[in-house]
Amino acid sequence: MGQRSLDTLRDELRSFATARDWEQFHTPKNLAMALIVEAAELVEHFQWLTPEQSRQLDEPKLEQVRQECADILIYLTRLADVLGVDLLDAAYAKMAINAVKYPVEQARGNAAKAART
Amino acid sequence: MGQRSLDTLRDELRSFATARDWEQFHTPKNLAMALIVEAAELVEHFQWLTPEQSRQLDEPKLEQVRQECADILIYLTRLADVLGVDLLDAAYAKMAINAVKYPVEQARGNAAKAART
Amino acid sequence: MGQRSLDTLRDELRSFATARDWEQFHTPKNLAMALIVEAAELVEHFQWLTPEQSRQLDEPKLEQVRQECADILIYLTRLADVLGVDLLDAAYAKMAINAVKYPVEQARGNAAKAART
Amino acid sequence: MGQRSLDTLRDELRSFATARDWEQFHTPKNLAMALIVEAAELVEHFQWLTPEQSRQLDEPKLEQVRQECADILIYLTRLADVLGVDLLDAAYAKMAINAVKYPVEQARGNAAKAART
Repeated sequence: MGQRSLDTLRDELRSFATARDWEQFHTPKNLAMALIVEAAELVEHFQWLTPEQSRQLDEPKLEQVRQECADILIYLTRLADVLGVDLLDAAYAKMAINAVKYPVEQARGNAAKAART
Repeated sequence: MGQRSLDTLRDELRSFATARDWEQFHTPKNLAMALIVEAAELVEHFQWLTPEQSRQLDEPKLEQVRQECADILIYLTRLADVLGVDLLDAAYAKMAINAVKYPVEQARGNAAKAART
Repeated sequence: MGQRSLDTLRDELRSFATARDWEQFHTPKNLAMALIVEAAELVEHFQWLTPEQSRQLDEPKLEQVRQECADILIYLTRLADVLGVDLLDAAYAKMAINAVKYPVEQARGNAAKAART
Repeated sequence: MGQRSLDTLRDELRSFATARDWEQFHTPKNLAMALIVEAAELVEHFQWLTPEQSRQLDEPKLEQVRQECADILIYLTRLADVLGVDLLDAAYAKMAINAVKYPVEQARGNAAKAART
């Protein structure tokens, strides 16, 4: 088996959709809706948990959460493909923006203050 | 520069959070919330567009959408790291499930029917 | 039976939660999560539909959508109660803001332009 | 001023949309998207807060949250109007279902168990 990457995932998802005549449904609008629905299925697993409980999922629950994460990545990758967006490039570009927006020292100070509130 | 991948992104995000003392806020519960907020910022760009308009974003709009996609990937990667989930493995495992759930011929038939409604 | 209103709904939901010892779970944070999960279940019904199809739900589908609307109103009412927010007052106050933000003539012009795009 | 209720809110929102030629954009699909975007703006206020902090918003924050609650009620009311759904009837019908689904004694037992985890 070849090396798995976001690029191979994108290509396989494209073939998967084409084979099923699903391109007609895969508008960016619809894919964004599908993505947020999956994000909500993820949120649902955590809605009544304390912060601590959310760090200690048992294996059956973790497997469900893993599948929700997969669904989100699948729709995000498919959306990015339809839009012609390179996800890794976009994420690295955003991290550069975030590094400027949240300087280390200032962020540590704010974190300490928020934790005391 | 080394090869960029989901793994390198995960490692950089972990360092970014650690340097800022953000692990205390990065519970799975909070990260799932942050992720869906970013998903909604994506949805917002499409909410009043026709399906056709959503396929033809101009460059300034596309750049905004690209950044929302980046934010989603960033939080998804961070969440998966905190949970110990391998995103690519999870996505490929889910695709195998989907291949069984949506056989090609049946999916094509359903797509044709849905399109006629 | 007395007159039904948002106020009677709020009171009944409060009693419902108290009887079940659910106040401990009903933090604003958790209720906001529950609310968005229900909003996503609503979105899910529409994600693959054309705009036209979304206007013409058959009765079984409409009943499901009705229940999602109900769930959203229930969590929104419960959240507002916990926060001490009067929903109708808040909505009327927001409409006054919107009336200033979207003057009729300008809004009609923008609508016509958007429709032509 | 007449009595405010969900019915008067629905009527005012309908007039507001009609005056601005917005019915063309107010498909159930689009309104569901707008609603979840507002729900996410609500969630955003709570994403990094502890459960306790979420119960103790200061007044400026509470005013922002109040406006998000208003936006959600506005879109929910508008959506229900377009679909011909009576929100209060739907909510009361759902509460009857929930009363059967979550019997008091059993719910109290589960709550106690969840709190111990």
